[in-house]
Amino acid sequence: MEIGIVVGTVTATRKDESLVGAKMLVTQPVGIDDQPSQAQPIITVDTVGAGVGEKVIFVKGSIASRAFDNDNAPVDAAIVGIIDMLECDYGKG
Amino acid sequence: MEIGIVVGTVTATRKDESLVGAKMLVTQPVGIDDQPSQAQPIITVDTVGAGVGEKVIFVKGSIASRAFDNDNAPVDAAIVGIIDMLECDYGKG
Amino acid sequence: MEIGIVVGTVTATRKDESLVGAKMLVTQPVGIDDQPSQAQPIITVDTVGAGVGEKVIFVKGSIASRAFDNDNAPVDAAIVGIIDMLECDYGKG
Amino acid sequence: MEIGIVVGTVTATRKDESLVGAKMLVTQPVGIDDQPSQAQPIITVDTVGAGVGEKVIFVKGSIASRAFDNDNAPVDAAIVGIIDMLECDYGKG
Amino acid sequence: MEIGIVVGTVTATRKDESLVGAKMLVTQPVGIDDQPSQAQPIITVDTVGAGVGEKVIFVKGSIASRAFDNDNAPVDAAIVGIIDMLECDYGKG
Repeated sequence: MEIGIVVGTVTATRKDESLVGAKMLVTQPVGIDDQPSQAQPIITVDTVGAGVGEKVIFVKGSIASRAFDNDNAPVDAAIVGIIDMLECDYGKG
Repeated sequence: MEIGIVVGTVTATRKDESLVGAKMLVTQPVGIDDQPSQAQPIITVDTVGAGVGEKVIFVKGSIASRAFDNDNAPVDAAIVGIIDMLECDYGKG
Repeated sequence: MEIGIVVGTVTATRKDESLVGAKMLVTQPVGIDDQPSQAQPIITVDTVGAGVGEKVIFVKGSIASRAFDNDNAPVDAAIVGIIDMLECDYGKG
Repeated sequence: MEIGIVVGTVTATRKDESLVGAKMLVTQPVGIDDQPSQAQPIITVDTVGAGVGEKVIFVKGSIASRAFDNDNAPVDAAIVGIIDMLECDYGKG
Repeated sequence: MEIGIVVGTVTATRKDESLVGAKMLVTQPVGIDDQPSQAQPIITVDTVGAGVGEKVIFVKGSIASRAFDNDNAPVDAAIVGIIDMLECDYGKG
């Protein structure tokens, strides 16, 4: 899983019908120092109640659909946790 | 999911038979500022009625086949929504 | 899917038995301007009759095995179409 | 699989319910010389008893869920081994 | 699939039980000119009898588990062939 910060929301009226009702958030991947990584922001489905500004754990790939109510939905990124604490005592941390 | 802008179309007469009838669009990945990212344009299957110039949400990987009528088709990228509004009030947004 | 140009062939006598008979082509990912991208050439299974020098559509990931006769084969890249025409009228195109 | 060094831990009270009880470790991908690669640290589920400072083997993608007790969990990275010895006698090794 | 050269071996006593008996080799991704690519070496499961110094074909992602005896094993990279000959007559080849 990767670390990200929720930076916005996205609205799409015309979409795959299995995505109707999905809460889609724009998430910026970040490092353990909270700085944005070089990766572009992605659109993540949220099922844990995340909001803009929160630091989250997200998954990518087909497994992301399992976090969503409808696991047949074409979802490849999902927020699966909201980070309380990240402790890095070693190496770059 | 990622953000992209549809930039063109592709025609392929000889193709996997499960792709016959598929609408294939060339999509350029972009950032939240609509600027092209460093990623190459990709070929996406469209099932939501997207057209050239529209800003879309697309998925990558095996899950993309679920957006397509024939989920046994060898499809690894699909447009699953057309973006109405993208609001980024935080961080880089 | 991605755009590539077939640049060569590969022969492997010792291989996974499910790959026996597979036609394996070396494919260079390219941009919409036909210029090689920074990505390394990959080995793709071909089931649509592509040849060296042709511009093709290829898929990556587990879905590629569906394009192959034996979908239990450990194949992660397959040519699924030969491009007749690519029209990019927008943006970088 | 990739090589990494466990550099920290992460706590998330609000998370996908299938992740309750999961031990989540922050892992920095490294090269065969133990130097951090350019890739960002990722969050990995651990089922083999790894601890901070250990050099581990981790998998990415949907297959990672198989290493976890609940293979329906939305897990895309898992530690599957703790490295005792890495011998590279060839090339860059 | 990608091209690599086997550069070493890895030993892990503590590991996922489905990996017991797996032969794990360190593989450096290379280009068609045999030069190492920028990608880090990865750990690949071998089922075709590859050895250090050999040029191989490897697959990545969940499909790699199909090359392994136990396809429930958390394996995301596997050697599926040993290259006899690579002929690139076109473009960069």
